[in-house]
Amino acid sequence: MTSGRTVLTNLTAATLSAQADGYGLIHDAAIAIEADSISWIGPAKELPEEWKDAPQVDLNGRLATPSLIDCHTHIVYGGSRAREFEMRLNGATYEEIARAGGGIRSTVSATRAANEEELLASALPRVDALLAEGVTLLEIKSGYGLDLDTELKMLRVARKIGELRPVKVLTTFLGAHALPPEYEGRSDDYISFVCDEVLPAVKAENLADAVDAFCEGIAFSPEQVSRVFDRAQELGLPVKIHSEQLSNLGGTAMAASHKALSADHLEYLDAAGIQAMKDAGTVAVLLPGAFYFLRETQYPPLQELRDAGVPIALATDANPGSSPLTSLLLCMNMACTLFRMTPQEALAGITRNAAQALGQSEFCGTLEAGKQANIAIWDVKEPAELAYRIGFNPLNRLYFLGEDITKTQAN
Amino acid sequence: MTSGRTVLTNLTAATLSAQADGYGLIHDAAIAIEADSISWIGPAKELPEEWKDAPQVDLNGRLATPSLIDCHTHIVYGGSRAREFEMRLNGATYEEIARAGGGIRSTVSATRAANEEELLASALPRVDALLAEGVTLLEIKSGYGLDLDTELKMLRVARKIGELRPVKVLTTFLGAHALPPEYEGRSDDYISFVCDEVLPAVKAENLADAVDAFCEGIAFSPEQVSRVFDRAQELGLPVKIHSEQLSNLGGTAMAASHKALSADHLEYLDAAGIQAMKDAGTVAVLLPGAFYFLRETQYPPLQELRDAGVPIALATDANPGSSPLTSLLLCMNMACTLFRMTPQEALAGITRNAAQALGQSEFCGTLEAGKQANIAIWDVKEPAELAYRIGFNPLNRLYFLGEDITKTQAN
Ligand SMILES: [Zn+2]
Ligand SMILES: [Zn+2]
Repeated sequence: MTSGRTVLTNLTAATLSAQADGYGLIHDAAIAIEADSISWIGPAKELPEEWKDAPQVDLNGRLATPSLIDCHTHIVYGGSRAREFEMRLNGATYEEIARAGGGIRSTVSATRAANEEELLASALPRVDALLAEGVTLLEIKSGYGLDLDTELKMLRVARKIGELRPVKVLTTFLGAHALPPEYEGRSDDYISFVCDEVLPAVKAENLADAVDAFCEGIAFSPEQVSRVFDRAQELGLPVKIHSEQLSNLGGTAMAASHKALSADHLEYLDAAGIQAMKDAGTVAVLLPGAFYFLRETQYPPLQELRDAGVPIALATDANPGSSPLTSLLLCMNMACTLFRMTPQEALAGITRNAAQALGQSEFCGTLEAGKQANIAIWDVKEPAELAYRIGFNPLNRLYFLGEDITKTQAN
Repeated sequence: MTSGRTVLTNLTAATLSAQADGYGLIHDAAIAIEADSISWIGPAKELPEEWKDAPQVDLNGRLATPSLIDCHTHIVYGGSRAREFEMRLNGATYEEIARAGGGIRSTVSATRAANEEELLASALPRVDALLAEGVTLLEIKSGYGLDLDTELKMLRVARKIGELRPVKVLTTFLGAHALPPEYEGRSDDYISFVCDEVLPAVKAENLADAVDAFCEGIAFSPEQVSRVFDRAQELGLPVKIHSEQLSNLGGTAMAASHKALSADHLEYLDAAGIQAMKDAGTVAVLLPGAFYFLRETQYPPLQELRDAGVPIALATDANPGSSPLTSLLLCMNMACTLFRMTPQEALAGITRNAAQALGQSEFCGTLEAGKQANIAIWDVKEPAELAYRIGFNPLNRLYFLGEDITKTQAN
């Protein structure tokens, strides 16, 4: 723990402040850290008198950004889908894969069969891959249990990750992710089960910070998701949605009417959905890893989202079926290369806007006085390098709540 | 140095032997290492008597593969093209980028301006990213000097990397990469300069293990490249080629007639080119990183190469302009996701076939008795996981020439 006061000096800061233009760059900057927070940030020559005697850390001209935020992951799950990936590339049909036990149901079976220790042990290396690139805030969803016990188990494992690693974990209950086999043909009954039994139990144990649902032809209708969201709101939990990924069902507008924190995927989002997001302050979370892995061809309406002023976040969507991605830096590159986002938009997408997607804007996502001292230090000359390189981690140092948590080997 | 004898036990071996099917898997395998070589490999229960007293390393059921080989990189260069990447995403035209000093000429200028120490310092972190994933054989090209001094300087830096890091570096002279500005409109004269002045100097200092050229409308014609290859062959240097990336000029067939080790890129390769490769034993090196980064839409003729039995390798093409990729694992995933190669083909592509592309088949690329003990140990349950995951490095341990060179932090 950085006890007391430290000043980071000799750095370029990309503050990502919403008030600033672009990256919010400050050259020859200093950052004064008091306990877990940023007390002051600005040009070093303007450092307030009372900070001049504080211990200094010379960052050799490196770049400082807000530490990274992954606002959409399914990183806790049982089993592996590598064999399914291989079968498909060897020419197996979806039917053959399903018969061999593939698809989301294989993940549900494996997740149900695993105990908490096993789920934790399999998730931690994936989490560590994210953290090694400077992540200090991580969202983790349930949704591979689809029964009471397993949904609770997944959320407990997600909470445990936040205790074991230097990262803040926000958990999301995603009971309405897919229809479990035992409810085949009875999706309304499953929604009732989620609303009446699972959600209250999740709430009673305080296991979720938000509630999500997958609104899609292959999952749940806007009407069904709306029932889940009504119940979530009764229980005081904010909502978010997977919507318009494979088709346009209007789930986004429905979610916006529930003041959703974010709507995620959005390839098929239309103008009405964008307007509803804008009106509700809902963040658009784009998931280029899934777009890449599924070889999608329908692009999310980036220009329309920009024009409407809807904040755009990015996330890995880390999951075994459609995005086995555990790198936010790579996610940035994919957003630029595939979606033609700018590096500045991509960086805002995994810092300021990702914080907003998680309802954490007052605490983190930018380098500003009063925010938590969650700061990533990079061995790059300019912020665009973070998005430009592919498969390269230039993290030099990482501060979480004012503490330098860099592993010694990362130096 | 592992002095003498070691037996690796309790592992699954993916030998990638050409004689075996698929991965060449051996379950419950053992590998006996003597000095820098594999002395014996097979089912543990068949371990020869004379190895039973040797020191053992228990690998806990992990997967062993040949260590990785990157057979096509331009990893030594000056400057950065991150700003150009950003300008383009902010809507700049190619003209505007060229006027701002972008494009390959900016890399040539920066490479000419850098001294050996600077080039080395900028290349090493990129090299280290490759090595951290288990690379022990790395090809590095010149080609950003395009004058005598800078081409020699680049090759010296490449050689130096092989001295400073636990990796075998093979260097390739790529003088015919682009036309330098001082030869504008005189490409035949530049080819004469390459053949008459640079190549002999490269040979005199023994700075290159092979000679490459970029055969393309925007670079050099097959006739011009043929002159370079004739000269290379007079000097006893094997050749390889960048061909059929953006159009079909017949460079591949021309290169095959010079017994080229490999022809690389190949998106526009035709049947005649494939037949010529087959007849000459030329390896096809596919570069999915460039395909991805340039958002190409013309796929290399994978099925036709398979049908013809042409060995297919993969490489990062690590370079600042068209493939700032420094991960062979990600390259595998791109080959599977974008080109629909199988994980087995992808793994063969960065081991056995990459060794062949570098003329090193007798030394490495497979786990077989008599080969160098260059072995990667992975925390995965099956080889397909190496290609399936995106942005995740499961390397547990790395042997190079019989020595465990794993950094302590990688464990
Ligand atoms: Zn998702
Ligand atoms: Zn190349």
